[in-house]
Order: sequence, then structure tokens, then C-alpha cells
Amino acid sequence: MLQKHIIHRLIQSAIEEDVGSGDITTSAILTGEETGHARVVAKEDMVVAGIGVFKEVFIFSDEHIEFTGNFEDGKRIKDGDVLAEISGNLKSILTAERVALNFLQRMCGIATLTRRYVDEIRGADARILDTRKTTPGLRMLEKYAVRIGGGFNHRFGLYDGVLIKDNHIDAAGGISAAVNRVSGDVPHTLKIEVEVKNLREVEEALSAGVDVIMLDNMSVEKMRKAVSLINGRVLVEASGNVTLSSVKEIAGTGVDFISVGALTHSAPASDISLRVSG
Amino acid sequence: MLQKHIIHRLIQSAIEEDVGSGDITTSAILTGEETGHARVVAKEDMVVAGIGVFKEVFIFSDEHIEFTGNFEDGKRIKDGDVLAEISGNLKSILTAERVALNFLQRMCGIATLTRRYVDEIRGADARILDTRKTTPGLRMLEKYAVRIGGGFNHRFGLYDGVLIKDNHIDAAGGISAAVNRVSGDVPHTLKIEVEVKNLREVEEALSAGVDVIMLDNMSVEKMRKAVSLINGRVLVEASGNVTLSSVKEIAGTGVDFISVGALTHSAPASDISLRVSG
Amino acid sequence: MLQKHIIHRLIQSAIEEDVGSGDITTSAILTGEETGHARVVAKEDMVVAGIGVFKEVFIFSDEHIEFTGNFEDGKRIKDGDVLAEISGNLKSILTAERVALNFLQRMCGIATLTRRYVDEIRGADARILDTRKTTPGLRMLEKYAVRIGGGFNHRFGLYDGVLIKDNHIDAAGGISAAVNRVSGDVPHTLKIEVEVKNLREVEEALSAGVDVIMLDNMSVEKMRKAVSLINGRVLVEASGNVTLSSVKEIAGTGVDFISVGALTHSAPASDISLRVSG
Amino acid sequence: MLQKHIIHRLIQSAIEEDVGSGDITTSAILTGEETGHARVVAKEDMVVAGIGVFKEVFIFSDEHIEFTGNFEDGKRIKDGDVLAEISGNLKSILTAERVALNFLQRMCGIATLTRRYVDEIRGADARILDTRKTTPGLRMLEKYAVRIGGGFNHRFGLYDGVLIKDNHIDAAGGISAAVNRVSGDVPHTLKIEVEVKNLREVEEALSAGVDVIMLDNMSVEKMRKAVSLINGRVLVEASGNVTLSSVKEIAGTGVDFISVGALTHSAPASDISLRVSG
Amino acid sequence: MLQKHIIHRLIQSAIEEDVGSGDITTSAILTGEETGHARVVAKEDMVVAGIGVFKEVFIFSDEHIEFTGNFEDGKRIKDGDVLAEISGNLKSILTAERVALNFLQRMCGIATLTRRYVDEIRGADARILDTRKTTPGLRMLEKYAVRIGGGFNHRFGLYDGVLIKDNHIDAAGGISAAVNRVSGDVPHTLKIEVEVKNLREVEEALSAGVDVIMLDNMSVEKMRKAVSLINGRVLVEASGNVTLSSVKEIAGTGVDFISVGALTHSAPASDISLRVSG
Amino acid sequence: MLQKHIIHRLIQSAIEEDVGSGDITTSAILTGEETGHARVVAKEDMVVAGIGVFKEVFIFSDEHIEFTGNFEDGKRIKDGDVLAEISGNLKSILTAERVALNFLQRMCGIATLTRRYVDEIRGADARILDTRKTTPGLRMLEKYAVRIGGGFNHRFGLYDGVLIKDNHIDAAGGISAAVNRVSGDVPHTLKIEVEVKNLREVEEALSAGVDVIMLDNMSVEKMRKAVSLINGRVLVEASGNVTLSSVKEIAGTGVDFISVGALTHSAPASDISLRVSG
Repeated sequence: MLQKHIIHRLIQSAIEEDVGSGDITTSAILTGEETGHARVVAKEDMVVAGIGVFKEVFIFSDEHIEFTGNFEDGKRIKDGDVLAEISGNLKSILTAERVALNFLQRMCGIATLTRRYVDEIRGADARILDTRKTTPGLRMLEKYAVRIGGGFNHRFGLYDGVLIKDNHIDAAGGISAAVNRVSGDVPHTLKIEVEVKNLREVEEALSAGVDVIMLDNMSVEKMRKAVSLINGRVLVEASGNVTLSSVKEIAGTGVDFISVGALTHSAPASDISLRVSG
Repeated sequence: MLQKHIIHRLIQSAIEEDVGSGDITTSAILTGEETGHARVVAKEDMVVAGIGVFKEVFIFSDEHIEFTGNFEDGKRIKDGDVLAEISGNLKSILTAERVALNFLQRMCGIATLTRRYVDEIRGADARILDTRKTTPGLRMLEKYAVRIGGGFNHRFGLYDGVLIKDNHIDAAGGISAAVNRVSGDVPHTLKIEVEVKNLREVEEALSAGVDVIMLDNMSVEKMRKAVSLINGRVLVEASGNVTLSSVKEIAGTGVDFISVGALTHSAPASDISLRVSG
Repeated sequence: MLQKHIIHRLIQSAIEEDVGSGDITTSAILTGEETGHARVVAKEDMVVAGIGVFKEVFIFSDEHIEFTGNFEDGKRIKDGDVLAEISGNLKSILTAERVALNFLQRMCGIATLTRRYVDEIRGADARILDTRKTTPGLRMLEKYAVRIGGGFNHRFGLYDGVLIKDNHIDAAGGISAAVNRVSGDVPHTLKIEVEVKNLREVEEALSAGVDVIMLDNMSVEKMRKAVSLINGRVLVEASGNVTLSSVKEIAGTGVDFISVGALTHSAPASDISLRVSG
Repeated sequence: MLQKHIIHRLIQSAIEEDVGSGDITTSAILTGEETGHARVVAKEDMVVAGIGVFKEVFIFSDEHIEFTGNFEDGKRIKDGDVLAEISGNLKSILTAERVALNFLQRMCGIATLTRRYVDEIRGADARILDTRKTTPGLRMLEKYAVRIGGGFNHRFGLYDGVLIKDNHIDAAGGISAAVNRVSGDVPHTLKIEVEVKNLREVEEALSAGVDVIMLDNMSVEKMRKAVSLINGRVLVEASGNVTLSSVKEIAGTGVDFISVGALTHSAPASDISLRVSG
Repeated sequence: MLQKHIIHRLIQSAIEEDVGSGDITTSAILTGEETGHARVVAKEDMVVAGIGVFKEVFIFSDEHIEFTGNFEDGKRIKDGDVLAEISGNLKSILTAERVALNFLQRMCGIATLTRRYVDEIRGADARILDTRKTTPGLRMLEKYAVRIGGGFNHRFGLYDGVLIKDNHIDAAGGISAAVNRVSGDVPHTLKIEVEVKNLREVEEALSAGVDVIMLDNMSVEKMRKAVSLINGRVLVEASGNVTLSSVKEIAGTGVDFISVGALTHSAPASDISLRVSG
Repeated sequence: MLQKHIIHRLIQSAIEEDVGSGDITTSAILTGEETGHARVVAKEDMVVAGIGVFKEVFIFSDEHIEFTGNFEDGKRIKDGDVLAEISGNLKSILTAERVALNFLQRMCGIATLTRRYVDEIRGADARILDTRKTTPGLRMLEKYAVRIGGGFNHRFGLYDGVLIKDNHIDAAGGISAAVNRVSGDVPHTLKIEVEVKNLREVEEALSAGVDVIMLDNMSVEKMRKAVSLINGRVLVEASGNVTLSSVKEIAGTGVDFISVGALTHSAPASDISLRVSG
């Protein structure tokens, strides 16, 4: 579900950013005729994500590069595992190396962190969701990495999902009014989700006929009450300051979704290196 | 030193990514006439970075938005501090909010982490440097945030600095040969830096007439010997797996620069929120 | 809900298309100092749509043009009514004229045709919907014009709404299987709509738990049966070869939505002219 | 004469418009491995135009798609005829289908309507011309479709043809003055056409030495007199409110060209569908 | 007749080319608060051309720059004359300086060389024309500079003028055949010019009904015969290896146009400098 | 070291500039099926540069064109030599011809002029350098041509080299202050060059610890003194009004580099033609 032309554009602009008027060191030293072979090595345990984008950076730089991926996206690999092997023109490989790794280390980092959240709530029915707290320009890749890590995607942007927040409610003069305005305006293909802060608002949302209720920054105790009150009539999402240490208890409240901003805004990069042999 | 047109392009593409065919919730609920006032609040201690970019996102969305920044880039602020205040059309504020915060939380995160490294080596002569391990497309912003945090920039890309690595050395058949090829090719405005792995290569680099030597992944012990051997004749950079717990000892070896990939690839986002009052 | 930057880009490319290397006639004859005043006149009855875009073309060409709109989008006007008046540099007005009118005549045409469909089913509960059968590149404007004419929008593209068609059903091996795959993959903010051809498929869709059923190319008789079978449990959309002469009877079947491709792919342009006085 | 890069850009932006962040339905249901075969079927009589662009949409989406066109542009086909057949990856076919049809149905619609005008004046020497009243961004395709339908192109834009209109004449202070200014300014490769409203202006234009006279919104009676007055000395174009019912009589006046805005701004789309078999 | 958006795009890409990731020298030394005043000084005699583009580079970089032009495009100025004065932010001035001068020195160079050709044939009726031998990307500016220098423009590109060359004639099987194909295909707003090599071809062109004959690389003697043969029936252009020393004699043959490639491909830059006072 | 994507973009925009809405002459006359063979012939002595770009223009227009280059970049060729041969679709060849030649004639012109400067100082140790006085948008190609002609590149832009000029010195309050600011700000990978006007400034620069001194517009006599004073401690560049007649004497002063603006801003185009045989 990664759009080819979006990937292509991201790669091109990343290469222009890094290479600019030229890789002066490599151009000076290599004749351009040398070939080489490189191994891409994991330097810690991780979940692979983005191997396709990684490959595309090399192919974009030089269509004659040969690329062999050893693990598919989603695989858990160990420190020392060889993710992929690359053969071809050495200048092309060296010039593309950093950009390719910059994409890969970020995507693996997100998938690996997501996997930890998902594993943490194993057994519960809840799904781990991402948010819109993504890196500007890379949302498509980051949301893809979340899926690869076992998470699910919340809406992609402001255009493909309705989420009525407190400011909307205030402006409309209440949850019902806000829901009415939305249902008379947005395509019928979209559900209506509303963010609530307390049990009174939960009830208001239920009677307004929403499809999804987001419990915003509630204590676990209050979430449990909300879930009980909702009683399966609509979907329920928990949101706000979810951490690896709190996620399991939150899942235990019976919510359907737990959204975690940290998946995309604070995942440390995975440690991966590319080793060339002449 | 942030290029206006690059910032502009990043903002535009981030807004297109998030808003797409429209902010359907806000468009449905607001008439477009409402105005509002928002405070941007730090939810943890941090170093401010990117307040100018943050402001530009709102101005880009609506030139009539009024923006008051309370802290300049580089200031250390506390949990609860109000970074900025925003007034104007409520629809414009709500639609731009997430994109603006996505830039700001990332830049503050990098500046804050950089500051920790810089503070850690206070008293030493070494400078903390960034690397090319940046987020694709955001290098300019990330390197700016490093400077704001008290760090210094390594080269911006492959085009504005020479760094001869092991693969280059192998291809040329030795350090001297590589340095010769480079000095006969690149503009005379650039220094020549070479990456070495051991003391023998340090000597080879010195006799080849390089300007900077990068000690790659050496133990602290070996770095100390290298610095002693180099004895101030050229600049020295330490590189590879530098962490907050090791950086002080590395600085103690007498190197001139310590480059840290984590500054840009693994800085957690700063926690910042925008609170609107009608 | 028209995105400023999308409009701006459309206008720029339309002007480049028409003006190219220059408006040679006007440049040769006018000194560039002349000013003029123009009236935009309806030459037939119509519903106004796109007056904002129309204005933007002139402002884009020359920010000093003064523009006064006499009717807002959505107003029904008569042959001879003056939609707007434009004053300023004559060269700017003449050079922008055709591009501005090309946008306006198309948008008014769509709103006017939509209005006829909407009026035709007055009294019924059904909504008139557009489709994805729009002019390449102009979907945002065309869907806006449909709303202005009293219609509603179906999904904007393949990204913001789920519509399971016969080919999807075949590939999945049945409606239930298709619905299952979708609900395990797309964001929870989206409803699931499925296209059905007969009553058996209606039942299958109902038991698969879809949110919306599209009756594809059914006879009015069969639609009536389907609506009765569905009995308000999910939303119902009628689709396929709807015309001005058949739409009323279709609305009478009790469907919730009637989608009409012709609104955007076959609406004749409204007849509008711009008359300059020196 | 369709410029490859312009077509490519139009297709890319149409696909981005429709597919956006992804074809969520197809991505969820298909594995990406399925193949299929589709037939493109005419659902009414029409003149084929744009089969090359139609094909390019599929190739652009997936270079491995196999495409067989059964009729060339310009052929008249019947309801039920199979225009083309497409084989390959099913996901690629389904995702590109709507965009491809949106181009084709519009181009065939224009060619078909043009053909009707051309057939209407069979036997006369006049040529049917298009105008600049085209859809913003699609002028190249629409003017191509006019040629395919047997019409001829007027100038492509303001840059490749001189047309002196009433506002130009007023600004210059008369036809002679306007013609003088133009001939001292524009490249000698261009003819000079002037728009006239009555017989006095025809004479003025003749003595000013123009190459082409456009009779603007004249009655058929007056056109006949104008043609007689001009007597073959320069080319003559009839313009303004030409319809299928009036075009024959206009051709009978002896004008050389008849320009028809409706060819491009009001042609209904041709009805074409794509039927997939697994 | 310089298209605003084309100029804007050229300036932006020239600034990106020169400034890239930043003007590191100026950014390091200036605080960004300094203001300055600069005079733009001619260091040799020249014809001014491009002062508007020159100004735009500064305004584009910093909208608060104040710019006073002392001479309009087309003026002949002397060594030492001050073309313009610039006041404002010093950093903005220094960063934009080189790009602005690179445009101006080229445009003045072309206007100055054109002026020399035009002066050389003073008294003759012929016009000096440019060609399509322009710098890739700068044709609009270069053709503008030719006009400013007193020359006239030939067609702007392959799209706005017909020029039948020998290869076309060969492919068509003769001049008449080529002319027939063209007149049945291109808009009637365009004249037809044909390139001929000898008197036989002149006669063939005349009987084929062309509008303009281009005498390609003929001796002055042969040109004189051709002009005599043509005898005013069509326009005549002389082309091929025209130099400052041959142009007067060529004009004496009675041709209407003399096209000179060197105007745009070999004009030396004018010597202009910008002098800042703090 | 020519960046593929930059070349590609330049070619695309040059073709759009020249071909626009179509090569109307060629499209009218050729069926599109004709093939042809063309020889690219030097019409004067020159140094070949840009044969790769020249080839790319044809390949970009039509990937099936066959291209055989007879001389590599850097070769000196004679009037009459055949640089390359091109076979394939005649329409593609004719449409791309002018754009391809416009690139080639400019690049050969620059290489040829550079070669003359380099030959002029044969035997001296100095290198001929280019400047930033290049054609907007073409800097990469022009600096490449300088290298091909035997010259060397100065910095590519404001981003990859430090050059402290008089205005910087004034703003900082002296050379030392300026150097200090720079060395505390720019990446350590860059040298520091300073422009000086007299011997006092030379001494100031030496004690400030710069890496390169540029002698700006000094007399040969004064340069000799400066070189003697510097005595090999730092690199020395001569700059300002260098001509073919003065360059040898300047080289004799012992400077390391001589920068020559004329290489790129005033090189006359080389005379090259393309001859087609059917």
C-alpha cells in the first residue's frame, strides 16, 4: 500500500539533499568502473521494515544494482543477521548508502517499537494505533512501519476520518450539535469519532449517535467505567500518554483501540550498517 | 541560516500530507468566522528550537494569524512554560496545529538531547558534532536544532566536505593515493578528512597531509594514543557509538570533535501541546 | 473547504497553459498603463458556483485588481444578471479573462445541473451524490460545485472511503471474506460500503456486517424490494444510469443516496461573458 | 502531436488526485498477486479518441500491464464494441481504471461531438474550429480530440496566434492603429486576425491589411454580405453561438472557418465501461 | 511581455543553485541586523537590459529591500554610470548579489551586441532577428534582451511558427508537398516560412504559396538575385553566419529580416559590479 | 560528477521551452514513421565537452534513438570532424536537435576557452579556476566544462566554501574578527579563504590563520610581492580582470590559482551542426 510515486519523490528529494552538487569524495577517488559487494547487517535485534524502500534508493541511483533481500518486512531478526546483499557499481553503492540507511533505520525503529507495544498487550482484544504525530513528509512510510510492527493505522490525515475534539465541541455548542453538522456535511463513507473527557460526555456522545468514542487522557479507572457504560454499543479508543509500562493495564479495560504517539515521534533508530567488500 | 524557500517547501508538503483534500471535521463544524486564542505549552523541560518554523506553519496557512513567541530558540524552558501565543481565525489554527507541532516537537527534541551531550562534556575543548544520519528531507532543520542545542555541524552532505572512508582507501590502494586523487580534484576551499581504524593508519594519514583525522570506533584507550601521536598537527574527530555515558570520557582524550548520530536519528520528541480558548 | 494551495496550483497551470510565452496581442497593443472596468454577465439562468476561484485568477495575475462579487456561490441568477465587477489594469484583465471564465463556466454548469436533480426529488429523503467520474485534475472544484448545487459528496478518492465492488468480491471469494479483509486492514474511522447486483447479495452484505449497500444498476422494482429487505438496518445507495427523468422514481424507492455521474462528466458549461468598458 | 511529458504529468496528477494515500479497498482485499483480464466496452456509438492516453494510464501505474487496442483514434464504433483489452496485475488494473476512463470518456465525447458538427456541414468548404474555451489543464488533450473528430485547431493559446478583439481596438483607437502596433511587435511568423462586428469594420480591417477576419456574432444574413464584401482577399472565420442546428446555414455563407466553443466546454462524456474477468 | 511566473521560477532556481544549504560565510559573520547601501556600477559602455529581473532577485530574497533604478531598459550608458541603488538588510544584499548580477550581465551583454548589429544596418529596411540558438532555460529573457537592443524576435519555439527546413522538404518529397501538409494541419493563425538554398527552390516556394522565404547560407550575390526574383511577393529572411562585418552588405540586398544566432549564443557578458557601503 | 537528476531536469525544461505545445512543422509533415541518420559535425576547432548531455537530450526525447559518440569529452577536434552519429526516428531527431545543440555548443565553447587559458600558462604551477559568474541554472554543466577544458573548480556556491570579502571584513570590524566568527560557525571540513586588497591585509590574513588568500585586482607587481610575503605558508589565488593576454604573467608571480570569470560568462559558443540524411 506504499504509493510508488510518493516513495519515488521522497527518495529523489533525500538524494538531492545528501548528494547535492555531487559526492565529491567518491567522484575524486573512484574511476566509476569499480564494482563492489555489500552486506547490510543488523547490529541489534529488530523488526525489519522498509526493505523495499531501502532497495529502491539503490535502484533509483543506479538501475543496474543487484539487490537480494534476505528477510521480508515484518520479520524479527537478530544482531548480526544480514538483511540484504547489494552488488554492482561501487560508486553508486557508496553514494546511495547513507540515504538508504536513513530510511531503513527509521522504519525498522518504528516497527520494532510498535512490536513491543503489541507484544505487551498480547491476549487482549485491543489494537495498537498510530496517530498523526509523525515526521513531516514521512507519514506514509511511518504508518506503513506501524502496520509492519503489528499495529493498526488511525486516519491518515484530516481528510479521511472525522475526529471531533473539544475545540470543535465548544465551537458547535455541544456534542450533539457538532455531530449533526458533521453528518450533514461529510461523505457517508466516514464514521464519526468524538473525543470525550468524562463520563457525562460519554453519555452525550452515545445519544448523539457517534460511531467511535475516544477517551482522552482518562485514568485507567475512569476508562474502565466508560467502557462499561458504553457496553459495546460503539467502538472505544484510549488516547493520551500511553507508555510501554501502562499499555497492558489500559488494554485490560476493554477498549478496542489504544493510540500511541510515541510509535512515530520517539522511536529510536535501529542500528544497521552496510559493509562493502571491494 | 535556515533557507526561507526550503522551509516554505517543507511546510507546504507537510500541510498537503496532513490536510489533503480538506480538514473535513473542522470544515463541517466551524463557519469559518470564529476566532480563537491558543497557548503553546511545554509539558516537560526542554530547549526551545524551531519556534520560527512553528510560526511559519500558521502564517503559511493564514497570513492574518497573530503570533507571539515568548522564548527564543536556544532557551531552556520548564514544564508548564508557555512558548508562544496564537490568535486569529479558529479554523486556520485548528487545521495547522498538528503540522506545526510535529515540526516543533522534533526540533526541540533534538536541541534538548544535544544540550545534554554538550553539558556532559562541559570544561573539555571538544565540540559535539552531528552526522548525516538525519531524517530524509529534514536535514536542514535537524542540523539547525543541533546548533541551537550547543552542538556544531559536520558537513551538510556529500557535496560540501571530503571524508575519505575505508572503502575509498581500498579502492585507491591506500591513504596516500586517495588523498592525492582528492586534492587534484575537489575545490581548494575544502579540507580533507580521513577515517582511520588504528594507529598505523593515523601515521599514514599524517604523512599523506590530511587536514582532519576521524578515529572510527576506537576504544578510549586507543583514542588517547592517537591524540598523543597526532599531537596537534591536525584536527581529530572521534566517531562511533558515542552515548551520554561515554561522551565525557571520550572528550577527556583530547579529541577536537565528537560526532553523535543519535542527536538526529534517535532524539525523542519533546512534549508540547496547544490549548485553544474560544 | 477548497484548499488554497490546490486552487493556486490549478490557476497557475491554467494560466501557463493559456498565456505561455506571452499574450502577444495584448502586449503589442496596450502600453500596460491602461485601466478598465469589466462586468461579468450571465447569459442564461444558472446557479452560481466558483466565484471565489474566478476572483483568484484575476488576483493571481495582478494583486491590484479590484473585484466585487454581486452573488455568492449557491445563488440562482437570471439571464442578464451581473455576477461580478472587475476594475484595474486592462492588460491584466484581458490576459486573465479566458482562464477565469473557463473555471467559472464549468463550475456553474455543474452546480446548475446538480440543482436540477436536487429539485427533481424535492420532498424525498434521498440525497443526490456525485461520483469519481470527474475531470482529471479538477475533482476538488467539481465536488465543491456539486455541494453548492445542493448535492452531497461521495468519497473523494480511493483513499477516503471503502467501496467493495464485484471484482473485489470475486477476488476475495465472497462478500463476507471481502468485508473481513477490509475490516482487518483499513482505519476504523471508515465505514464499509459494498456494491450488490441482486437481492441474494443484499442479504449476504447484511449478514457480513457492512455499513452501506450500493444497489448497482438495478431496476426501480428491484430497488424497492432491496430497500424493503434492508429495512433501515444500513444505508442504501442507488447507482447506475440515473437521469433527470428517472431520478424521481428512484428517490421514491426509499434509498438514502442516489449517485449521478453526469453531474460532473456531462454538465454543459454555463454561458457567461465578460464585458469591458475602457 | 501529443507531448509525452505533458501527458505524463497529467496522468501523474490525476492518479495522485484519485489514489492519494492509497486504494484502501483494493489493498485490503487483494494480495497483489492476482492477475486479471479486462475488456473496455463502448456503451453507445462514438468516435474513439484518446486510446493512447488511456493506455498510458495503465502503463504508468504498472509497466507490465499488457494492452491491446482494437480501434485507432478517429474510428467510429458502435454500442457494444470492445475498444481495448488489458491483461496483468489485477490490483494495478483496478486502481488505474477510473482515472483512465475519466480521460477516455472525455476525449471520445469531444471527438464524437466534433464529428457531428463536421458531418453536418459535409460538402461545404468550411472547417470546424475549436476555441480557447477548454477545461483548465486539459487543452492539449481536448484540442487533439477535436482534430480526431475531423475539426481543426484555432490557436493553442494567447502566445501562438494574434487575435485583435474589440477591447484591443478601443485601446489602440481603431483597427488600423491596432494592426500597426501588432505588426511592429510580434514575430513575422504569425498572421494577424481581427474580430469585427459589422460591415464597416470589415472594410476597415481589409484596408488595415489583416490576414484573417473574424465575424463575431453576426446574423447569417450579415455574414453572407461580409463574405461577399471580402471576396476571397483574406480568410474569414464565423464565431459566436454556433449550434448543431445553425452550423450548416453558416457554412453556406462561404466562410472559411466556423469556431464552436461547445466542442470542448459542453461535450457530454461518452459512455464506456471496463469489465474485468478474474 | 516578460511572464511574471517564469521570471519567478528562474530566480528561485538560480538562488537555490547558488545559495544551496546556505551562504555560510555571510551567515557566520553578520548578525542579520546590519543594513547597507549598494550602488550598481557599469564598468564599460553598454545597453541596459534586465533591470527589472535584477531588481526582482533582491525583492525575491527580501521583500523589504529598497531598489531605485536610474536607467530604464534600452538606455545606452557609459563606463562609470550607476545603474541602480539598493538599500536594506546587508545579509540579504550580499547573498543575492551574484545571482542578480549573473542575470543582468548576460541580458545587458545581449542587448549591447544586438544594438551593434542594429546600428550597423541603420538606414536599411531590414530587421535584425534572433534565433532559437539560446541558452537552455533562458530563452524568454534572452529574446527580451534582443528586443531591448533594437532587434526583433523570430518564433519563440517550435510551437508558434512554421519553418520548413531541408529535412522536412526531403521527407515530404518537395516544397509543394510540404507546404500542403502544413496548411492542412497547423492553425490558420500561422504563416508558413520555408528555407531555401538556391534560386530554383525560391521559385518552387513562391509557387507553393508560402508566406516567408528564408535564404539559407547564400552568398550576398545570390541573395540579391533571390530578392529580385521574389520581388516583394513574400517576406524574405537572410540566415547563416551573419557577422558584424557582413551584416551591412546583407541588409543592402533588400531582405526584410536578418537572423543572427550570435546575439544570444555568443554575446560576451557586460561588466557590472555592485559596491556596498556599510 | 554530473548529477543525473539535475541533467534530466535541465533537459526536460529546455525541451518544454523549445517544443511547448508541439513541433508543429515536423508533426504536420512527417508521418512519424520515417527514420533518419544524422552526423554531428564540428565547423571549427574545439575541445569537446558535454557529449553525454547532448546524447541524453535525444534519449530523453526517444529512448530508441541510437547514438554513437566518436570523441570523448576533453578531446581536441578539428573543423570537419564528426563528433557523433545519431540514428532513429526522424521526427524525434528533428524535434530534439536544437535543444541538444544549444547545450553542446555552450559546453564546448567553455571547454575550448578554458583550454586556451590553461595552455597559455603551461609550465607554471598555477591552476586556472572558474568563478560563480555562471549562467543561472547551468552552473553544474558550466563548471563541468571548465574541468574538461583543463581548469579546476572554485567553490560551487555560497554553501560549500568560505570566502570572506571586503564587505564581510567591514561588518566584522577586521579580518581577525571575521575569521574568528567563521571558524566558530562553519563545519570544520571547510577551509577559510579571505580576499585582500593590499599587503597590509595580506599580513593581517596570515596572522588571523586563514587557509587561502585571494589577491583581488592587484597589479602583477603587487601580486609578486604578496606571494613573496606569504612565502608558501598558505595558498594564494589571483582574481580580477584576468585575460588571455595577462594570464601568463600572472602565473609567473607564483600564485597557486588564477580565477577567470570569462570562462563561463563570455565564452563564445562553438560552431556545430547536425546534418541529417533521410
